Amino acid sequence: MSYNLLQGKRGIIFGALNPDSIAWKVAERAHEEGATLTLSNTAIAMRMGETQQLAKKLNTEAIPADATNVDDLNQLFTQSMDILGGKIDFILHSIGMSPNVRKDRHYSDLNYSYLDKTLDVSAISFHKVLQTARKLDAINEWGSVVALSYVAAQRSFFGYNDMADAKALLESIARSFGYIYGRERNVRINTISQSPTKTTAGNGVKGFDRLLDFAERMSPLGNATADDCADYCITLFSDLTKRVTMQNLFNDGGFSSMGMSLRALQQYEKGLHEDCECGPAADEHLYD
Amino acid sequence: MSYNLLQGKRGIIFGALNPDSIAWKVAERAHEEGATLTLSNTAIAMRMGETQQLAKKLNTEAIPADATNVDDLNQLFTQSMDILGGKIDFILHSIGMSPNVRKDRHYSDLNYSYLDKTLDVSAISFHKVLQTARKLDAINEWGSVVALSYVAAQRSFFGYNDMADAKALLESIARSFGYIYGRERNVRINTISQSPTKTTAGNGVKGFDRLLDFAERMSPLGNATADDCADYCITLFSDLTKRVTMQNLFNDGGFSSMGMSLRALQQYEKGLHEDCECGPAADEHLYD
Amino acid sequence: MSYNLLQGKRGIIFGALNPDSIAWKVAERAHEEGATLTLSNTAIAMRMGETQQLAKKLNTEAIPADATNVDDLNQLFTQSMDILGGKIDFILHSIGMSPNVRKDRHYSDLNYSYLDKTLDVSAISFHKVLQTARKLDAINEWGSVVALSYVAAQRSFFGYNDMADAKALLESIARSFGYIYGRERNVRINTISQSPTKTTAGNGVKGFDRLLDFAERMSPLGNATADDCADYCITLFSDLTKRVTMQNLFNDGGFSSMGMSLRALQQYEKGLHEDCECGPAADEHLYD
Amino acid sequence: MSYNLLQGKRGIIFGALNPDSIAWKVAERAHEEGATLTLSNTAIAMRMGETQQLAKKLNTEAIPADATNVDDLNQLFTQSMDILGGKIDFILHSIGMSPNVRKDRHYSDLNYSYLDKTLDVSAISFHKVLQTARKLDAINEWGSVVALSYVAAQRSFFGYNDMADAKALLESIARSFGYIYGRERNVRINTISQSPTKTTAGNGVKGFDRLLDFAERMSPLGNATADDCADYCITLFSDLTKRVTMQNLFNDGGFSSMGMSLRALQQYEKGLHEDCECGPAADEHLYD
Repeated sequence: MSYNLLQGKRGIIFGALNPDSIAWKVAERAHEEGATLTLSNTAIAMRMGETQQLAKKLNTEAIPADATNVDDLNQLFTQSMDILGGKIDFILHSIGMSPNVRKDRHYSDLNYSYLDKTLDVSAISFHKVLQTARKLDAINEWGSVVALSYVAAQRSFFGYNDMADAKALLESIARSFGYIYGRERNVRINTISQSPTKTTAGNGVKGFDRLLDFAERMSPLGNATADDCADYCITLFSDLTKRVTMQNLFNDGGFSSMGMSLRALQQYEKGLHEDCECGPAADEHLYD
Repeated sequence: MSYNLLQGKRGIIFGALNPDSIAWKVAERAHEEGATLTLSNTAIAMRMGETQQLAKKLNTEAIPADATNVDDLNQLFTQSMDILGGKIDFILHSIGMSPNVRKDRHYSDLNYSYLDKTLDVSAISFHKVLQTARKLDAINEWGSVVALSYVAAQRSFFGYNDMADAKALLESIARSFGYIYGRERNVRINTISQSPTKTTAGNGVKGFDRLLDFAERMSPLGNATADDCADYCITLFSDLTKRVTMQNLFNDGGFSSMGMSLRALQQYEKGLHEDCECGPAADEHLYD
Repeated sequence: MSYNLLQGKRGIIFGALNPDSIAWKVAERAHEEGATLTLSNTAIAMRMGETQQLAKKLNTEAIPADATNVDDLNQLFTQSMDILGGKIDFILHSIGMSPNVRKDRHYSDLNYSYLDKTLDVSAISFHKVLQTARKLDAINEWGSVVALSYVAAQRSFFGYNDMADAKALLESIARSFGYIYGRERNVRINTISQSPTKTTAGNGVKGFDRLLDFAERMSPLGNATADDCADYCITLFSDLTKRVTMQNLFNDGGFSSMGMSLRALQQYEKGLHEDCECGPAADEHLYD
Repeated sequence: MSYNLLQGKRGIIFGALNPDSIAWKVAERAHEEGATLTLSNTAIAMRMGETQQLAKKLNTEAIPADATNVDDLNQLFTQSMDILGGKIDFILHSIGMSPNVRKDRHYSDLNYSYLDKTLDVSAISFHKVLQTARKLDAINEWGSVVALSYVAAQRSFFGYNDMADAKALLESIARSFGYIYGRERNVRINTISQSPTKTTAGNGVKGFDRLLDFAERMSPLGNATADDCADYCITLFSDLTKRVTMQNLFNDGGFSSMGMSLRALQQYEKGLHEDCECGPAADEHLYD
């Protein structure tokens, strides 16, 4: 279903690897809503993934760019404005990667050149995107930029490792640049803090399935899916949220505002019966 | 401009007193977006204000109800479902009043029965609306409820008095009930923390014009207007934000994420020249 | 062990019911640290509890006062200054009660006069204490006031019911009054957000033992005990924290900054094995 | 005045450059409270500053170490344990530097190798300190580690530049490592978010005097001084705060919980009289 919320708008979507990617869904939804857009990913990701197929489907181009490389970004913005016929109205930054996670380096045994890489790819790249765009004056007045984050930026999650720090840095960059770009060109910059989502990246996190189950039971509305995230992005790219900026917005079924839910506690409690009498909790008073 | 975002949806809007009211704008925008709705206000407000005119304009009815009175609310929901032909999809709670502010009682000299009134009208009424709706099962699955708040719930603002505490209570109720109503019926409940806005209510706050000026200069995008708030409400009522719940969402041009802006500091600095040499600050390096 | 941190200071401790009470421990520790103090509780609590014994032990008096009654508070402050020989340096507010919890009224079926009572006893009483003290000019410059709170003020906890809203209100009052009393008399006002603690009050909360276990496993340092809380209060009453005010300070072993710990997740995971193969999780990689 | 709060404890203090440094005051106060400690700074800072004099005064040694260099840190911990005769009980990390600020690179024109340096010196160094300590098992059970931060980690401050992002990263590292080190060895890790303070580092920030004045008038208790910070650190290093971890603790006279104070608004308002009629604001109602 389309509302034409992005009619006439031009966007750049980073990080659409395959149909599981949140960025993939956002690109599809933005297109449905009337936007034209270009896609971008690293050269390697474009060879391994399916970004090109999506570009074809959306009748546009996928432009290889390493988001940590300012020259590549310059090229990307210039080409995108050329292809789309004008300045950019919205950008999605959905980029994150931790060599420490990949190589199973524990948070108390980080490899510091890996950490630099984690921060550069997952957070500083966002600054580079914004700085490059601003120098080129590539974003229209009241343009909207969104980066994807996770609640681990605020609270510690087992196994999320140095990505937590990268997300905290990312959210800070959104605020810092949001001030500058807002006062100068009314460009708004926000992060969406999304439920854990089954993507290629998400699967790299330790104990991910358990976490997903826990989050599902903790969240009154259940976990937000990639489709939900795409819908939410559309509202943030639209003209209906013009004074929302420098915010970290939770799209998580309520998880971030929960301390303990009944559903999660019941599940948890089963684990307490270590003698394996795992029948239904004999607690009929537990109705709350 | 309409996107038909609320096509087929039914709503109740509390607090549309006159064309300056945020609720007024929300009602108009919701109507434009295809919703049908009823309006509600206290009987006194309806005599003094222009709610009836708005109802006429939107081709609907204004139903008097004291939102602190459960019987009135029962009546309101029953009538609204009757008039609109089904369960409710969205609600706006834009209700606040402090007798302590009105009667100029300082925060360190509160009248406690006034305080009870402040809390009842401005915060507990929200619980009453939700509890009544739930008992009547009056809200559709995935319905959306929004209440208007202010950043004084988190930080102390000179002159905001006991309304700060009322807003903190309101936001807590949104979380608490958001958990219950979310897990049971997927109803989402959020608050919007809006810029200071020139409404009949806003004008009651001490030093309001100065605060407005300060907020304007602190906020990279300037203060969010009532129209901006209406647009934002539309996105929250729509199906595009289905997994957003239990959140306090700032619609404030970035104010909440600012510590000090250049524009506000320059203005502030002029005040420091007490000898009245109020010329331009002799600081050409101050470009940041 | 004593450091004489409160040598020469005078205090009032509300809420010491029996040796399990946090307030009880605070009173004992304050006394050890060289303070003189009075105790206060409602008349009923004083008959049912052991406040008098504590008063005897600390060589002081227990003064009955209903903290929701301004006359009682006036009396309490006047008497306390009389007994202690001067103005007050520190106050502990450890008062909370919800008739809705006691009578098992679900959060979606609150009795509103019970709710008024919850708010009055658990939150507004704090304003009354402060307003009374200020009118009597009963607190010394740089005095320190602490109220006990819980993380449910920020996040929803199954079963905590309207106490969550009361705590949110309490924390807001600490901020609001902290501004006023700070600028005028340099009195600092903070809340401590304490781990769930086995007290007579804590036991009233539904599923409390499970919650305690969950919090214990989530918190890297384990739950903070009543003794830990007493120690923390001492630092806040001392002259070493003179510029800390309007804060909500977590004394919780790290719980508030945790999203998911390994220990809690392992326990949780056992619950997922519904077929009762509750052996050790076969996941040797799960070392983080 | 001394309470012997740190009797028998051993510490390492990073960043005591000269008597204006917060770290300098912390070292002096820790020594007064009975601790023994070593000092550390970069070799350059030790040549330019007065760290050696402080070491002499406190009857200890200043050990040169680049906190971004793991070998140096290894050396520092090994030497410190040797000098002090056992494992470490507390650490202060007071290290921050931004080449972008120094070289006047605007936040929208960052030099990215400077940014790497900012992050490495101001934030990642904290991880390196902790990781090195943990690998050497250099910190006693229930040891306490504190790093100094600033509210710019949460809100954007004109002129604070990439230091804001560094502080956000620093605070995240405190949480992330606080989880690991807490569950394993009960080591607690916190950050203190301090008022703007007149130090050699602070003076590098643009418009610092104005900011100081604004913060002073916004904070009900005025700005926290370096001495106040030293006192607060003592409480966090002591055994009285054993269950406080993973927190960012504001020592700021209330600034962080203020939205607008009367004193700041009055000053601000003077600036609004651009025609230079800067007499007293003609608003006798403005008593709040």
